[in-house]
Amino acid sequence: MAARLSEPQPLLALVEALRRLPGVGERTASRMAYHLLQHDLQGAQHLGRALSEAVSRLRHCDQCNSFTEATLCGTCQHPERDSSLLCIVETPADQNSIEATHGYSGLYYVLMGRLAPLEGMGPAELDFDRALARATNGFVKEVILATSFTAEGETTAHYLSEALRSKGLKVTRLARGVPAGSELEYVDAGTVAWALMERKPT
Amino acid sequence: MAARLSEPQPLLALVEALRRLPGVGERTASRMAYHLLQHDLQGAQHLGRALSEAVSRLRHCDQCNSFTEATLCGTCQHPERDSSLLCIVETPADQNSIEATHGYSGLYYVLMGRLAPLEGMGPAELDFDRALARATNGFVKEVILATSFTAEGETTAHYLSEALRSKGLKVTRLARGVPAGSELEYVDAGTVAWALMERKPT
Ligand SMILES: [Zn+2]
Ligand SMILES: [Zn+2]
Repeated sequence: MAARLSEPQPLLALVEALRRLPGVGERTASRMAYHLLQHDLQGAQHLGRALSEAVSRLRHCDQCNSFTEATLCGTCQHPERDSSLLCIVETPADQNSIEATHGYSGLYYVLMGRLAPLEGMGPAELDFDRALARATNGFVKEVILATSFTAEGETTAHYLSEALRSKGLKVTRLARGVPAGSELEYVDAGTVAWALMERKPT
Repeated sequence: MAARLSEPQPLLALVEALRRLPGVGERTASRMAYHLLQHDLQGAQHLGRALSEAVSRLRHCDQCNSFTEATLCGTCQHPERDSSLLCIVETPADQNSIEATHGYSGLYYVLMGRLAPLEGMGPAELDFDRALARATNGFVKEVILATSFTAEGETTAHYLSEALRSKGLKVTRLARGVPAGSELEYVDAGTVAWALMERKPT
């Protein structure tokens, strides 16, 4: 990257601040800053306000750990949710994916991450004790582990599964297999191998 | 993308605002918002402030169109710059690349974009009249076109070249060729073809 020989301080400061976004390097941050300043001043102001609003107004739900403005989020407050089912997900986006199926009526716990020892994310950083306390509140009968099917997600699920089963809870995991609508030819070998092992009578 | 069934309004607003950044879709915006709120609240506040500072303090240099806090930027104000040379670039980042060579002592004009008719960027949107007025101020003897070597950058250079030469100015373009330090095997065919056509006696 070329040295910034002549750029004004507020521009340098904006580029630095944008670099703190995940996945944004110096070149991308510069491009973003130029774009906002040149073509979308309103967008820049808008984003500035949205950031301070979000920081000041959002907190974690006392029960599920997702983001909320109140003490309890809308899902946790909902009277028709089945409190005997608890689905553990990594992020609010994963919760949305499950909600979008309209096939789940239980409650959630959002870890806000997954075990990643190399990045310093261990059970303490993710506050697993709080997740376990939530699952062992006496109402939950089954915990569905819906962490990602990646190495880190699997490790997270394994760790939680051990801890939860030792407390006598029923623990399940989302099924793995060939995605709906896919042609076998284009599915990765690991997925096909799993689907073969987990084959079901028709 | 799953429907956001239960997310609080400040989070939705932040995701929407982040989507206005170039190259950021809904999924990336969500990931950025979760990251800031979960792991970098300070970064979120910092970015919010940097945005309002930049919007309120930065303006375009009266002479070269780059970003500056004063009427004229540091480069334009510099007493030792050669005002008979004018280099036209697309962005301040491109200007930095040329400054980093320490091989150019003239002045700049920053277009803040390039011709891209499909995106609605024509000569009027880029205010080419202002660039031409700058180049024909009576002091400039040579205009170096340093727009990108992409289809859009070439079109921009071609357009400006025609207009500037019709005003009797000497117009040059950065040389194309094989980049320093590259092995021919790994250079794209178009570049090699150019380098061959533009071959020089040794
Ligand atoms: Zn909740
Ligand atoms: Zn200037």
